[in-house]
Amino acid sequence: MMSMPVFLLYQYGEDCLKVGLFGFGRTGRVVADEIIHDPDCTLAWVVRKSGQDNHAYASDFLGVPNGKQGFFYSAEETASPEFYLKNPVDVIIDFSCKTGLYEYTAAADYGIRIVSAISHYDKKELLHLKGMAQKTAVLHSANITLGINFLLVASQILQQIVPNADIEVIEEHFREKRETSGSALKIAEKLGLDPVKHINSIRVGGIVGKHEVVFGLKNQTIRIAHDVISRGAFGAGALFAARSLLHKDNGFYTMEEIMREAFIQKIAVNNILA
Amino acid sequence: MMSMPVFLLYQYGEDCLKVGLFGFGRTGRVVADEIIHDPDCTLAWVVRKSGQDNHAYASDFLGVPNGKQGFFYSAEETASPEFYLKNPVDVIIDFSCKTGLYEYTAAADYGIRIVSAISHYDKKELLHLKGMAQKTAVLHSANITLGINFLLVASQILQQIVPNADIEVIEEHFREKRETSGSALKIAEKLGLDPVKHINSIRVGGIVGKHEVVFGLKNQTIRIAHDVISRGAFGAGALFAARSLLHKDNGFYTMEEIMREAFIQKIAVNNILA
Amino acid sequence: MMSMPVFLLYQYGEDCLKVGLFGFGRTGRVVADEIIHDPDCTLAWVVRKSGQDNHAYASDFLGVPNGKQGFFYSAEETASPEFYLKNPVDVIIDFSCKTGLYEYTAAADYGIRIVSAISHYDKKELLHLKGMAQKTAVLHSANITLGINFLLVASQILQQIVPNADIEVIEEHFREKRETSGSALKIAEKLGLDPVKHINSIRVGGIVGKHEVVFGLKNQTIRIAHDVISRGAFGAGALFAARSLLHKDNGFYTMEEIMREAFIQKIAVNNILA
Amino acid sequence: MMSMPVFLLYQYGEDCLKVGLFGFGRTGRVVADEIIHDPDCTLAWVVRKSGQDNHAYASDFLGVPNGKQGFFYSAEETASPEFYLKNPVDVIIDFSCKTGLYEYTAAADYGIRIVSAISHYDKKELLHLKGMAQKTAVLHSANITLGINFLLVASQILQQIVPNADIEVIEEHFREKRETSGSALKIAEKLGLDPVKHINSIRVGGIVGKHEVVFGLKNQTIRIAHDVISRGAFGAGALFAARSLLHKDNGFYTMEEIMREAFIQKIAVNNILA
Repeated sequence: MMSMPVFLLYQYGEDCLKVGLFGFGRTGRVVADEIIHDPDCTLAWVVRKSGQDNHAYASDFLGVPNGKQGFFYSAEETASPEFYLKNPVDVIIDFSCKTGLYEYTAAADYGIRIVSAISHYDKKELLHLKGMAQKTAVLHSANITLGINFLLVASQILQQIVPNADIEVIEEHFREKRETSGSALKIAEKLGLDPVKHINSIRVGGIVGKHEVVFGLKNQTIRIAHDVISRGAFGAGALFAARSLLHKDNGFYTMEEIMREAFIQKIAVNNILA
Repeated sequence: MMSMPVFLLYQYGEDCLKVGLFGFGRTGRVVADEIIHDPDCTLAWVVRKSGQDNHAYASDFLGVPNGKQGFFYSAEETASPEFYLKNPVDVIIDFSCKTGLYEYTAAADYGIRIVSAISHYDKKELLHLKGMAQKTAVLHSANITLGINFLLVASQILQQIVPNADIEVIEEHFREKRETSGSALKIAEKLGLDPVKHINSIRVGGIVGKHEVVFGLKNQTIRIAHDVISRGAFGAGALFAARSLLHKDNGFYTMEEIMREAFIQKIAVNNILA
Repeated sequence: MMSMPVFLLYQYGEDCLKVGLFGFGRTGRVVADEIIHDPDCTLAWVVRKSGQDNHAYASDFLGVPNGKQGFFYSAEETASPEFYLKNPVDVIIDFSCKTGLYEYTAAADYGIRIVSAISHYDKKELLHLKGMAQKTAVLHSANITLGINFLLVASQILQQIVPNADIEVIEEHFREKRETSGSALKIAEKLGLDPVKHINSIRVGGIVGKHEVVFGLKNQTIRIAHDVISRGAFGAGALFAARSLLHKDNGFYTMEEIMREAFIQKIAVNNILA
Repeated sequence: MMSMPVFLLYQYGEDCLKVGLFGFGRTGRVVADEIIHDPDCTLAWVVRKSGQDNHAYASDFLGVPNGKQGFFYSAEETASPEFYLKNPVDVIIDFSCKTGLYEYTAAADYGIRIVSAISHYDKKELLHLKGMAQKTAVLHSANITLGINFLLVASQILQQIVPNADIEVIEEHFREKRETSGSALKIAEKLGLDPVKHINSIRVGGIVGKHEVVFGLKNQTIRIAHDVISRGAFGAGALFAARSLLHKDNGFYTMEEIMREAFIQKIAVNNILA
């Protein structure tokens, strides 16, 4: 681990965020596309479960001309610690699957930040991830979009300001989504609402994903709503999380915490300006 | 009944719709206010259950200066057939209660149109009302607003145009309203939707009444929504119904039928203009 | 033209709608995808301006396994009348460009229906298209989605039912769309609204396309809204138009007329059921 | 002013907020009604410009049985300092007119808090009010609803979190409101938006008041919306402001500052709970 300080100098010395991506499925692809098109980011490499197109470029796959970004590596190649010395990145973003994290355990030793957007971990994997958080800054959130996390934090604040308001959550998704939205469940939990009574699930057509929190008072109604247009929204959230982790201490974070910190920091700025 | 032809000549010979109102509760009052302020209507009299303020004017009660509209009569006074000869109106609008119709049974004999906006009738009363419909044109609808009935008709048309669309109904009302909205149930019934699965009831704060029908297709969503600002919306609907009944044959009508007819008539006009 | 009757027998004798597509740009592709995935349609062939991938299959290009649909032909190949004898289709759907129609002039002679979704034609091209409409049924609409045309027809009906309502149009699109939405302009024109005063254009982020018509009355508000999730909505509209044209006489039609007819036909059905 | 400490002990020693109200017009009345119905408030007295119903009770006027709240005084009676010694209150809420403040100048000497919801002050009156703020805590906001101020603060935070978002303001009001909403102008000013380009004003029917701030990103849209159901919303805001002023130092405050402080305070609470 002698190399770490040098590596960190490299990390913070450049403006451009260097990203390694795990997962290249339906969401992984649009996230890769987001990263490639972000002028302040480079997609260094992509690890694909299938091993398909190994040693080709994700940017070519996605039809980005002259991209040369996102070199495909197999999971076998990333398992060895040397991989991260030879292919250093600032952050690993994980949109693979719940066991994907075993492939990049070694990355934590080099202080590479981890952003995991896996929907659900079993206890064992969560413990493993928290173990990695002792060596680097790790963030895990099932819904990593900025919008949902803004809803989450703003709603909790509003609930405390108007404690007598009635609150309902409406979530709308495509017809095939059978279960209740995990984000809606999280919102309900944080607001202390019985999810069976207060989450209203609309399942129609091809709606990508919409969440709305309705605060009803006697004489006024306040609504905070988030509409996903495309899954690229997950990429924007993951990059926001990644940048926030750069200067953080080792530890385990959630997107909600990052958002709450952003609130505190931005209110302070407003205060000075006001 | 020798007087009938003369009476009818009177009815149709004037532009101004002459209304008798039964019921002066929370809704009755705002309906009275709507009628008084409509330049094409006159509120001839109001029958109040309580008998309160008998022989005073509703317009004074409502603070309308120089109104002299809506003379209060007691239910006893209206029970006798002579009442309608002495105090002729074009239409009776009923916002009283489910037994209110017994007070104006005699009115049907004079061809006075009946618009009843009572939420729910028992079988016996419904039969009585249908009996009256053999002598005059009678309309009954639990929700008589133009908006809800537009939703009802437009939704049924749209459902047939896009039969593969998923449909959900969202209804929002004030926290104290415990039961599912009757209008939402009617919409669900007409669209063949299981109300338990497809009606989403939001109960928050003081929302007066909102209904939204969501049609979801793979690539697009269509929404038809109706928001009540004040209970005066019931008055506007009742007057629309009243005017539609003027030239109708004796019989029993619903607001949905009147709205459907309006659709057919208005499409035809558009066709010529197009 | 001796072959026409035989050809027509073929056309109507099969359940499956056989489509020829002109244009394979951003919208053309998603429309092709819609047609290929519709179990009641076949995409017989696609004419691509670029001539790229000639004699390959659009279904392969779009990654549909075992599709063998949408054989690519060059514009030169379709110009000769024999092309349509050898490659008969029920309908041509045109998402190419404003001069694309010259490539398929011959198709009209065989009674092949034409659905054109070109945004804007110059006078010369519009005349040419109307000339073709003397030989077959031709439909042209700049916005061919079901949703927009439902808004258009439903709004005109509602305006006549509540002539005193104030009406505003809100249209929301991605930031790069500089001009006012053509569909919003059409809605304003049909409702007799000054577009400068009554169209409200929101330009933010990546919103695909939303239109809302707001009807405001004193005591209630009615909103009809249409949200495009993806450009596939144009494909669904084009197929609806195509099916409607099958049994129509020669002539020039618009999507609004087809929608108006659907309203009339569906109301009648409701009437029987009621 | 020897009595002040005693007076203050009284103020803070009781749970119930004692209010004096200036103004009993359209808004003043619903605000009075709100205060009377709030179990933690008492409406001590009301000053009416007209002097009408002097020495009667506002609660009787509003039809609240056994209320005996809101004794009507004339402006002449409140002008003398003794009035506030004899009729002490914790806070004066002003919904009268821009010169109303001259009637209660003396109240500031007794440390009575001032909440003014006057839409617009001329320079002279604003200076006078700020002069009073040297002797007590004074709050002035043109729009004092909780909802608008939540929008204002939450929008400024969100703008800093997603600085690349496009932002538009939509405001909907009744047809007679000709000018742009003052609250929308305030939101635009705080967000640095050109009001001509980015405020969209909808004027239809009887909409009481709705404001929506739309944040558009490439892949998602976030909306914060506030709907007024009745003018009672101003009462709730004024009472929130009044309670916040109780323990504040002398000085001049705005509702936005109070809301910003509530955000900071409530985030801190969340942090502990998290």
